[in-house]
Amino acid sequence: MFVKHGMNSQFALLGVLGSSAVFRRQQFLIRTLGGYTNQTHQNRIQQTKAMSGIALEADAEHILRAITPTLDPTKHKGQAGNIAIIGGCREYTGAPYFAAISALKIGADLSHVFCTKDAASVIKSYSPELIVHPVLEESYSVRDEDKLSTLGKVLAEVDKWMERFDCLVVGPGLGRDPFLLGCVSEIMKHARQFNVPIVVDGDGLFLVTNSLDLVSGYPLAVLTPNINEYKRLVQKVLNCEVTDQDAHEQLLSLAKGIGGVTILRKGKSDLISDSETVKSVSIYGSPRRCGGQGDILSGSVAVFLSWARQRLAAAEGDSSISKINPTMLGCIAGSALMRKAASLAFQNKKRSTLTSDIIECLGRSLEDICPAS
Amino acid sequence: MFVKHGMNSQFALLGVLGSSAVFRRQQFLIRTLGGYTNQTHQNRIQQTKAMSGIALEADAEHILRAITPTLDPTKHKGQAGNIAIIGGCREYTGAPYFAAISALKIGADLSHVFCTKDAASVIKSYSPELIVHPVLEESYSVRDEDKLSTLGKVLAEVDKWMERFDCLVVGPGLGRDPFLLGCVSEIMKHARQFNVPIVVDGDGLFLVTNSLDLVSGYPLAVLTPNINEYKRLVQKVLNCEVTDQDAHEQLLSLAKGIGGVTILRKGKSDLISDSETVKSVSIYGSPRRCGGQGDILSGSVAVFLSWARQRLAAAEGDSSISKINPTMLGCIAGSALMRKAASLAFQNKKRSTLTSDIIECLGRSLEDICPAS
Repeated sequence: MFVKHGMNSQFALLGVLGSSAVFRRQQFLIRTLGGYTNQTHQNRIQQTKAMSGIALEADAEHILRAITPTLDPTKHKGQAGNIAIIGGCREYTGAPYFAAISALKIGADLSHVFCTKDAASVIKSYSPELIVHPVLEESYSVRDEDKLSTLGKVLAEVDKWMERFDCLVVGPGLGRDPFLLGCVSEIMKHARQFNVPIVVDGDGLFLVTNSLDLVSGYPLAVLTPNINEYKRLVQKVLNCEVTDQDAHEQLLSLAKGIGGVTILRKGKSDLISDSETVKSVSIYGSPRRCGGQGDILSGSVAVFLSWARQRLAAAEGDSSISKINPTMLGCIAGSALMRKAASLAFQNKKRSTLTSDIIECLGRSLEDICPAS
Repeated sequence: MFVKHGMNSQFALLGVLGSSAVFRRQQFLIRTLGGYTNQTHQNRIQQTKAMSGIALEADAEHILRAITPTLDPTKHKGQAGNIAIIGGCREYTGAPYFAAISALKIGADLSHVFCTKDAASVIKSYSPELIVHPVLEESYSVRDEDKLSTLGKVLAEVDKWMERFDCLVVGPGLGRDPFLLGCVSEIMKHARQFNVPIVVDGDGLFLVTNSLDLVSGYPLAVLTPNINEYKRLVQKVLNCEVTDQDAHEQLLSLAKGIGGVTILRKGKSDLISDSETVKSVSIYGSPRRCGGQGDILSGSVAVFLSWARQRLAAAEGDSSISKINPTMLGCIAGSALMRKAASLAFQNKKRSTLTSDIIECLGRSLEDICPAS
């Protein structure tokens, strides 16, 4: 499991690294996200207060370039990312598709969806590129006496794949069926046992807000709430209302309150905190608010978080590098790319911009920032 | 059944052939793949060792031109290839679609898919160009007492078509259900009886690695393993680990160990052997490793293998020509075209290249090498 430590000695350690491109990328990451650790939470809040007027804007494009892997003909299928979306039910099929196809369009090698049978054939028909597992069940299709055995079967199906996944996205199009959410809770517990990062969005946040233990204290959990989902989290965890005046501090406190998970608060600017650091991403996106953009974001964060972990793991043994939190990097990169793609799509499609149009701009947006060759 | 003999006298025989374009193509094929036969396997390995530093690179573009049939208004439907994919189950629908549509996009006239009922409607929805037979069954849908009769029905459905097929592709999206794999084993036995070539990929390789008899000694069998599938084959057949130092010799030994099947070992360079010859295809492809590229390859090899057989059959009676192995030609041509298409797609789509993008480039890639008119 990823563990964060003090970062005070990180700059002293830099001398032992070479002067390669890898070194320069690592150095950049340390500069970008260093500086908060080994302080008390109270100190951090004080410091954030003092910085209220100062830009906490992340250098998102640099982070994107630093974590995106080079393409290399010696690599084989799966090494650039194997992502799984848990979502898709009788009502919703678009959301898990958007998340899964976004992951592929950014550069992941494999993208799975675990959904109900009803949803599976529809999601499959959207694209032959996805691997869609019709394994989830809703209450209406399971008799009470079969619930335990069905849960066992669902878990067995997901467990067969779990250790191959670089990240789970829990929530796009999940719905709120109690039996289905019960199964998903167990899937999340298994993911934690396997140290698989979990990005939680949509109805996954409904589940998590009511069962904070599912993510509490898990540093590889990322929550991506919109304004209403954030409000419910703040009410539940901090027992107060959302404030925009002390937004950074409140976000720090919320992330701290859920045991150091990373939260990406979506808004005019996206605010991101892992309870140690707060960063914002304010790149201009699009004024269109068509449904589905959050699903692109969750799929994007999953890919970039996986790449950031890979990048940091490559520097294993270098204690200064291993302290950087890949979930922060993943959120910053995912937010930036999503915004850039939305902006490009809006330039072209204006009011008629749909989520699919934004997805079609993911590749060009990434290429503009970080050319493949 | 295709039988290989000694080729020592092949050049002496060339004088009896005319000087037409057909003759020049045949001459080229003999030059390209002649020279190994009538040697012991040990001699061949010695020769390969001596050639380690020498390029074994196939002249793939020439082979492509030599075997691709001219388009002729007098021909009728089916003469340019009738391919069948055995695959597609509850979990997988994209893989058989990719293999089947690739065969059509290269120039086959007809492309069938034999899959489960669940998969059939989804695969049909991807494209109206395919003929999709919902005939396979998985264990969950068959009662134990019905298994024998179901097997009989499945075989009867496939047998109705078998003799019309120029090649079967077994494996794309096949899954690992024991009953389904049992049925597919019987389909493969029937294909051998009908002398229909079989390209085995994906879960078909899982089946074959556990039941080598299905392909052992069948010269019209082609296995197309990726790095992991190759590892399992080597462990099973040669009882050792994969070596990259003596890669050519190991591949020769593996093909020999499975009774002279042809193996296309996918990697940075594709290595191909029929236990008599080793050739490589190193045309630069794409550094993207998105899932599904192997399915394009299997569909491509099926078409080119069929065309190569047709080309060689046209020279029937010429014993020098009839000794050339069409499976080697099919693998070389399929590998080369797939790589060229992947390269074209990547130039345009970069990191967001998906398998569908590569399929869209198959036609142009073939046209660049071998213009239709």
